[in-house]
Amino acid sequence: MSDIHSMAHAIRFLALDAIRTAGEGHQGVPLGMAEIAATLYANHLKVNPDDPLWPDRDRVVLSNGHGSMLLYALLHLSGYKELSLDALKSFRKLGSVCAGHPEIEQHAGIEITTGLLGQGIASAVGMAVAEQRLQAQFGSDLVDHRTWAFVGDGCLQEGMGQEAISLAGHLRLGNLTFLWDDNQITDDGATGLSISEDIPARFRAANWQVIEADGHDISAIDAALSQAKTDPRPTLIACRTIIARGIPRLEGKRGGHSAPLTEQDSIEMRTALDWPHAPFVIPDSIYHDWTTSMNRGRAACHEWIQRKQAHPKHAEFDRWHQSPLPDPWHIPAVPNAATPTIQSSGDVCDWLTDAMPETLVLCADLEAPTNHKRRRAAFTADDRSGSYVHCGVREHLMGAMGNGIAAHGGLRVVNVTYLAFSDYERAAMRMAALMRLPVIYVFSHDSIGVGSNGPTHQPIEVLASFRAMPNMRVFRPADAIETAEAWHIALQTRDGPSLFALSRQPAEQVRSDASATLSRSGAYVVSNASGPRALTLIATGTEVGLAVAAQSALEARGVPTAVVSMPCWELFAEHSTEARAAILGDAPRLAIEAASPFGWSHWLRPEDRFIGMDSFGASAKADVLYAHFGITVDNIVAQGVALNKQK
Amino acid sequence: MSDIHSMAHAIRFLALDAIRTAGEGHQGVPLGMAEIAATLYANHLKVNPDDPLWPDRDRVVLSNGHGSMLLYALLHLSGYKELSLDALKSFRKLGSVCAGHPEIEQHAGIEITTGLLGQGIASAVGMAVAEQRLQAQFGSDLVDHRTWAFVGDGCLQEGMGQEAISLAGHLRLGNLTFLWDDNQITDDGATGLSISEDIPARFRAANWQVIEADGHDISAIDAALSQAKTDPRPTLIACRTIIARGIPRLEGKRGGHSAPLTEQDSIEMRTALDWPHAPFVIPDSIYHDWTTSMNRGRAACHEWIQRKQAHPKHAEFDRWHQSPLPDPWHIPAVPNAATPTIQSSGDVCDWLTDAMPETLVLCADLEAPTNHKRRRAAFTADDRSGSYVHCGVREHLMGAMGNGIAAHGGLRVVNVTYLAFSDYERAAMRMAALMRLPVIYVFSHDSIGVGSNGPTHQPIEVLASFRAMPNMRVFRPADAIETAEAWHIALQTRDGPSLFALSRQPAEQVRSDASATLSRSGAYVVSNASGPRALTLIATGTEVGLAVAAQSALEARGVPTAVVSMPCWELFAEHSTEARAAILGDAPRLAIEAASPFGWSHWLRPEDRFIGMDSFGASAKADVLYAHFGITVDNIVAQGVALNKQK
Repeated sequence: MSDIHSMAHAIRFLALDAIRTAGEGHQGVPLGMAEIAATLYANHLKVNPDDPLWPDRDRVVLSNGHGSMLLYALLHLSGYKELSLDALKSFRKLGSVCAGHPEIEQHAGIEITTGLLGQGIASAVGMAVAEQRLQAQFGSDLVDHRTWAFVGDGCLQEGMGQEAISLAGHLRLGNLTFLWDDNQITDDGATGLSISEDIPARFRAANWQVIEADGHDISAIDAALSQAKTDPRPTLIACRTIIARGIPRLEGKRGGHSAPLTEQDSIEMRTALDWPHAPFVIPDSIYHDWTTSMNRGRAACHEWIQRKQAHPKHAEFDRWHQSPLPDPWHIPAVPNAATPTIQSSGDVCDWLTDAMPETLVLCADLEAPTNHKRRRAAFTADDRSGSYVHCGVREHLMGAMGNGIAAHGGLRVVNVTYLAFSDYERAAMRMAALMRLPVIYVFSHDSIGVGSNGPTHQPIEVLASFRAMPNMRVFRPADAIETAEAWHIALQTRDGPSLFALSRQPAEQVRSDASATLSRSGAYVVSNASGPRALTLIATGTEVGLAVAAQSALEARGVPTAVVSMPCWELFAEHSTEARAAILGDAPRLAIEAASPFGWSHWLRPEDRFIGMDSFGASAKADVLYAHFGITVDNIVAQGVALNKQK
Repeated sequence: MSDIHSMAHAIRFLALDAIRTAGEGHQGVPLGMAEIAATLYANHLKVNPDDPLWPDRDRVVLSNGHGSMLLYALLHLSGYKELSLDALKSFRKLGSVCAGHPEIEQHAGIEITTGLLGQGIASAVGMAVAEQRLQAQFGSDLVDHRTWAFVGDGCLQEGMGQEAISLAGHLRLGNLTFLWDDNQITDDGATGLSISEDIPARFRAANWQVIEADGHDISAIDAALSQAKTDPRPTLIACRTIIARGIPRLEGKRGGHSAPLTEQDSIEMRTALDWPHAPFVIPDSIYHDWTTSMNRGRAACHEWIQRKQAHPKHAEFDRWHQSPLPDPWHIPAVPNAATPTIQSSGDVCDWLTDAMPETLVLCADLEAPTNHKRRRAAFTADDRSGSYVHCGVREHLMGAMGNGIAAHGGLRVVNVTYLAFSDYERAAMRMAALMRLPVIYVFSHDSIGVGSNGPTHQPIEVLASFRAMPNMRVFRPADAIETAEAWHIALQTRDGPSLFALSRQPAEQVRSDASATLSRSGAYVVSNASGPRALTLIATGTEVGLAVAAQSALEARGVPTAVVSMPCWELFAEHSTEARAAILGDAPRLAIEAASPFGWSHWLRPEDRFIGMDSFGASAKADVLYAHFGITVDNIVAQGVALNKQK
């Protein structure tokens, strides 16, 4: 039997020593949760440090990510090779795997980036959903693991954390356990400054199993962890802990969170805990206990590999994890009439239901208007075989769940709602961009084309706000063909998220030939000028149809006009200056987008013009609004003529 | 005694007729909540339709804003003049006061813009806080009113709604009542698709009074409303309702939410409810009942006006509501050493504690690192006289509370957290911009200057994302003087929000003369070239200090260099082209900002250069990161020399 008590102290001292070496850090979590973590790793967790990417491993999420030294100490002690003592000594230094907050490095055992409060537990819900979806497909011989999340008070105060509690209970995710560090202290002081609710009762109201335990009592924690594994509901283990346990000066105090640690603190903790070892020295017997604890997971991994080789679905299992694109790719039927791009996107998503069954669609209470459930069954508490999750009106959770599902692996996740609600999940989307996770965001209702629901629901600055975000590709396709191309490119992209801004309003079909994925260049001439180019119209989305209509009128007035469709700025920016110049041309440019001009100066010269939105929208029908804000064929023609004359 | 039953039907038919006339809309709420609303207005609400801006009125918030015809019908029937029958007939048309979702028009009785789910109830918490803060200052003779919020299932699923429940219970806001439309239907279908929690138990866990009532039983609702007014806790009235009550085809069904209404629906509802009147015709007896119901509020308003005239604090009450700036304004002492701008901002905020006691600071669990509580006492459940609200780790709620406080009036609200967390409250900030509410957002930790907490906590694209937002002014001040100027300008601004991006890292003092508010022009020459300008450095925030340091080195190399500080793009953009050209000059330009280049093309020509961030940040100390990403004096000098040569 391992000496979990000493295993826990090893966490404490590695954390203390690393934080002392760095000169800063957050000791509250590693010192307060040392027994909880040591007990989990010693007796329950199923991972193999020799094979950190083993698909059937348990997932560990440090939602209270500021306590990152807890995770690094755990990974070091468990034998993850990347987490050497030298790595711990480089805590919070440039290039270290031991960053201030955990940054995803799955080969090192760091499952997901955390630190912005709430993101971790919400992503953990996604991981638990992913496991259940895959288990339904491949059976428990291949998929049978759990998600464990370390959780602080901050995560539970965050709205997204509350959304996570609600949906996890509703979906009866029995494979999910939260380990709550109930230390009653935040960086501001006592939690009672800002919260007085009965948190166990709140979880029970959402149909969770709740177990209360002394977070420093190893046998109580052990019993709670066992009980968590046998209940069909998700489990909260409410661990009453003392923040910074072990440092006499800071135990249970506000400063326990992250007050700078002194030499004296180090001496006093060593005395208090009877730890005679020098900094970063862990006795072999303790290392031995940690290492042997991992043998349980190693054995399970080896057995799994055997089972998988003999399993009739092993090739399919691998295919889902590799997720190659169908060949041939879907070539959409060109609609006979103007069609909302959200509807064309739904057509692709319908096709993917069978063509890429590993796709999993999350949607926030907009099943009908977003058209992405039509052929998909729901993933529910009773039936895990569906590929559509009703996330409820919980956009931020949905965004983070997408990250958890993508980080888990084995599924391609699609996230569907209205573009105006992207603001609700933006923080989670930024995490996807930061982690370079291949999440696809399908947004409908892209502009004032929403119509009478009014300015609250009409994105104006949203395109710009995401174009400014590193690693995020923003697509605003013009028609059914560009929409299918956006899907094609996004599904081929493995190293970052893609966002589609799609229309509720009908989009004129501007392309008839789908044989080349023209959108891949980000911008291209969709309609050439009849003679030497005197004007270039640049547009995105439904405004490409307006530009093409204006082109005829301009040509009729003797202005040879080219139309450039620019569905994806980021792809266009990857081209050489010369390639871009060839597409944009030397002629005067008029850009049209029913959105803020912010950022367009990058593609326009001072003498060029822009037609779009300088203000928020208004409540009226879409065509009335387009006319009201001057985004019309007539205005494009008038401005195009004027531009051409001033040349 | 009024015939509340018929009063409710009047709501139903005005909603039906207006939605039929518009050809679209959401009937679920007005038909389902008609009895609840009629009972509230008939027997409890304290408002005066003749004086919609009466400061001591009750506030009504339609958080389920898609049901806007409920509010418009209520205001029409109550006698708000702007809500004429013609206005109702223009529902959802361009320019109508009856927009698709309620848009703030307080003179018309529309207290706040709602429609994005969750925003309404979270703002209602702010209104209730405002009332309590003002009551503590002026006594219940001048301030004694309540906030009533109509709430749908969606609002309660949203994380921000959950944050609202938690904090309202913690702060014991007994003046706040939620009227929950528990119709068990969403736009997706049964609420059971995505939620199965015990919502009353969830409220009780957060220390609310919960009363369950049949939402169509007038006497039960009436009793519940009375009980809400006598309990010291906030109250949830869980009203079991039938969506679209009255239309046989849609009652209790998914289509009840917003399915198009037919002529047949109109006929059948008139038959079912025994309503022989033509569209938009309400019998005089019903109008009479509505009008006389309002006499209670009229009388209260007249009594209040009398009381106020005689009240010793009446001048102070008016001053708080007008909130003139102190004269003379605060001139900061110039620090002796480089000082973080968040600290300089805290100095101004300290001064405002007494100089403008109507300022109310909201902060999300970052009391110490943000420096804005130092001189302020907390507003708590037991003491409403404090001017600092511990909002907990609930940024989205905090943002919406700010909107509610600003919409309430009588206070100037300041919202404090880290800039990276602006993503969590962005949707609420957009609402402030849309409503043109004068909220001030103080954000610390503006850039990679955050240091080792790493890329999750380092804003890169945030400045661009807010510069793209209409009506939002973004300030990134260079030093203590510019920080005080940002406060000065923001407090003078009554027609929109202002955002300060402030540094954790020390800012060199680039100004020594505070006598002119130079920041008012948005950008200005902070340090002139020694001769005819050969180079212009443009910078914001702490990078202005780098630019000034580089200027000396460039001058020494024979490159006469001017430094332009550009704390606020929006103010600079208000100037004429000529005025801007005079400041930016003709010489080559090099812009420096530790942020995404997105948007900078607006101020730079193709041949100009930019030093900043092309990627997310990393975990290391601030100075290491600045060096790593090339945002250094040396690099500015090198690039400046190169630019000057290529000229």
